[in-house]
Amino acid sequence: MTPLLQQLAGIVGPANVLHEGDLSAWEIDWRKRSRGKALAVVRPGSTPEVAAVMRACAATGTPVVPQGGNTGLVVGGIPDESGTQVVLSLQRMHAVRTIDAANLTLTAEAGCVLQSVQEAARDAGFLFPLSLAAEGSCTIGGNLATNAGGTQVLRYGNARDLCLGLEVVTAQGEVWDGLSGLRKDNTGYDLRDLFIGSEGTLGIITAATLKLYPQPAATLTAWAAVPSMEAAVRLLEIARSRLGAGLTGFEVMGRFALGLVVKHFPALRVPFASERPYGVLLENAVQAGERQAREGFEALLGVALEEGCVTDAVIAENIAQARELWHVRESIPLAQAEEGLNIKHDISVPISRIPAYCDETDARLAREIPGVRLVNFGHLGDGNLHYNVQAPEGGDARAFLRDEEDRVNGIVYEQVRKFGGSISAEHGVGGLKVDTLPDYKSPVALGLMRAVKQALDPANLLNPGRVVRV
Amino acid sequence: MTPLLQQLAGIVGPANVLHEGDLSAWEIDWRKRSRGKALAVVRPGSTPEVAAVMRACAATGTPVVPQGGNTGLVVGGIPDESGTQVVLSLQRMHAVRTIDAANLTLTAEAGCVLQSVQEAARDAGFLFPLSLAAEGSCTIGGNLATNAGGTQVLRYGNARDLCLGLEVVTAQGEVWDGLSGLRKDNTGYDLRDLFIGSEGTLGIITAATLKLYPQPAATLTAWAAVPSMEAAVRLLEIARSRLGAGLTGFEVMGRFALGLVVKHFPALRVPFASERPYGVLLENAVQAGERQAREGFEALLGVALEEGCVTDAVIAENIAQARELWHVRESIPLAQAEEGLNIKHDISVPISRIPAYCDETDARLAREIPGVRLVNFGHLGDGNLHYNVQAPEGGDARAFLRDEEDRVNGIVYEQVRKFGGSISAEHGVGGLKVDTLPDYKSPVALGLMRAVKQALDPANLLNPGRVVRV
Repeated sequence: MTPLLQQLAGIVGPANVLHEGDLSAWEIDWRKRSRGKALAVVRPGSTPEVAAVMRACAATGTPVVPQGGNTGLVVGGIPDESGTQVVLSLQRMHAVRTIDAANLTLTAEAGCVLQSVQEAARDAGFLFPLSLAAEGSCTIGGNLATNAGGTQVLRYGNARDLCLGLEVVTAQGEVWDGLSGLRKDNTGYDLRDLFIGSEGTLGIITAATLKLYPQPAATLTAWAAVPSMEAAVRLLEIARSRLGAGLTGFEVMGRFALGLVVKHFPALRVPFASERPYGVLLENAVQAGERQAREGFEALLGVALEEGCVTDAVIAENIAQARELWHVRESIPLAQAEEGLNIKHDISVPISRIPAYCDETDARLAREIPGVRLVNFGHLGDGNLHYNVQAPEGGDARAFLRDEEDRVNGIVYEQVRKFGGSISAEHGVGGLKVDTLPDYKSPVALGLMRAVKQALDPANLLNPGRVVRV
Repeated sequence: MTPLLQQLAGIVGPANVLHEGDLSAWEIDWRKRSRGKALAVVRPGSTPEVAAVMRACAATGTPVVPQGGNTGLVVGGIPDESGTQVVLSLQRMHAVRTIDAANLTLTAEAGCVLQSVQEAARDAGFLFPLSLAAEGSCTIGGNLATNAGGTQVLRYGNARDLCLGLEVVTAQGEVWDGLSGLRKDNTGYDLRDLFIGSEGTLGIITAATLKLYPQPAATLTAWAAVPSMEAAVRLLEIARSRLGAGLTGFEVMGRFALGLVVKHFPALRVPFASERPYGVLLENAVQAGERQAREGFEALLGVALEEGCVTDAVIAENIAQARELWHVRESIPLAQAEEGLNIKHDISVPISRIPAYCDETDARLAREIPGVRLVNFGHLGDGNLHYNVQAPEGGDARAFLRDEEDRVNGIVYEQVRKFGGSISAEHGVGGLKVDTLPDYKSPVALGLMRAVKQALDPANLLNPGRVVRV
């Protein structure tokens, strides 16, 4: 053991410094596209231990890669291949510290699994609305470090919008206690939001005070067939205006995406089969009770049918039916995988420009890369599409990805820039997009980011080479 | 004219460089407590002009104080007394650039008066919910630079929560075009929220893309008499749980504050006179229509009356009655002024701790400074109280302020710290609290703020001496 590892063992206990044997759980990324090599995996059990680990690493110039549930999609939480970086896993810090019912807040440690936060909130009679596919494994610290999105953003916002305060260990190993439960506090710069979304490159989030909401009294789900993306956007306008904050979900799914579900999961009932260009899943959650939710939905769909932006619609009669509809939506990524390899995107565009974006990009891809198939679906209410590209039918998908992935990404991202969008709506930058970002972000923005990074982490020890290079 | 002033005149035109005559409109703060002396007032008409002014000032080491409507309450927008600082007024940049209905966004220049933004939104059929007393004079750039609060925070959040993107001129005179209309964009550090609330010390906001909301179909107002602050907090819990996002206002007013309204504005009808310890104003805004809003309110107040946290309640029958109720609330600051000089506070505390905070602080002030009278009112739904202190009856109020203001502030702020609160909930730091803040903010937080300031404005030219000293 090197002197540093001995020192770290002194801080967290020898059992919590892993440096031999199989460390692949911490070294391989979630999508299994990258493998790093850690100097050691260190698992502190408290905030003072995190700070002491950071100080020891800073004193020796050792880079630190903070890691939560290691479910990130952009290679932002694993070490590089050098064998010189310490992985600092927050997983042992998983306590829900307090729930303050009258203040509608919950304070949890960074390593608390998202689902545990949701359950603690529910047990206390409240809703913690952040919800995403990896919720059984991802941690709240990682959710905040990456400003996670998910299915409830339309109503409740991203992870950033659900956080009131943070506790953070700085690059110098100091502890910033910003665990405020305040909804209003104008005493200086917004450090909280600077750390949120910085992917572990500016500080290590060790705990957070989160917003809770009352549980909705009733939640209803509907499915509408719409004749075009333009009609889907118009339906969204009507739904927002009539349901207001009751509108908690608005997911759009293209015909080809739904066709893959029909093909690979024939047991699932996809409403209005796949003959309509797009399906839309709507969710309406209200405090007033089911009758009101249903009346609101019926009136909305009536108007939309009359106007022609909806051609068919069905409202789930019970929770089982609602789950079935959501299940169709959630099966799209699996159906895609069944169909074969594909190129994934996580883009956003102003909602008003999505129809033109899709029309133009669909046509450009079809023209420039004949045979590609578009698996277009996503959170239309947030302007966020998973605009994925499946290899041509029957061809060699692996060869297609090898030969065409860069060109496909180039076309999709160029179009995103043209339409004022983002090349990473909810997944972040990590190591995967750090060298792509400068092509799509202004030099002024990158310069400001670099200045902030150098100010808070002058030795470049926190997750170096991710988000922005210095 | 100095060479700098000649250069500035070349950029913005001689008519827009004011350096002689009466400049008091730009040099005296809103509460008329401070007067500075400007080298000149410069009024650029476009973002490139702002950038050119900033470059010229940076080249000569001339400090720049950005100013909007000059309605700030903490001496953050006027020059110091040295006569060396340029006031950069954004007032000529007052265009609403675009409204994007399907994206629910509006892009306005910084000098646009808040009321004009509200009106432009309304004319397009939408709501821009930021609302505060100075809305006829304050500008959206100033609102964002100070992260303004106001009366709709409970439902819609502070100014920060209403902004999707910014255009900013940096301390180096570069333009950051961050005017995104995206609800999801995880491509790097949150520069937007760093500039918001930085009170012109990190950059000059020149334009913003703002969130719009559908206009509520019906808005109802109610007034409840409650037996204690604890009962008011309990009423808030019930209201949030039953009305959800429909609850758009929850204002509490203490007996003495209401008594001042009765005394100085006898024409106003204050419900349940002033015999009850606290009055609460509730607002319920829904998309579903007036019948539902009224049913929701009636059910809520019924439960609260039964539980005993409300002793009397009335729901406004029409808009005129609703306005009258709000008018009572809004008359408290005026009634205070009629009663004489007083010491103003703008504090926040976690909502659950407000009853204990008030009990303890009321008692401590009564004990340590006999005769003081507490004008306690504010946005309870946000944990934000204007916990103001009126001089003892019949005494010399001016002498009281001179002799006791520091001691009163000391007690109020010490209690705020003890209860995990903030000494400036919505007004900011400015020059007024810059030297008080270090007593109530952690050295780690101040160190991080200083590092950020030095990174983005290394020459300390942007609004120096405000928010944080470097």
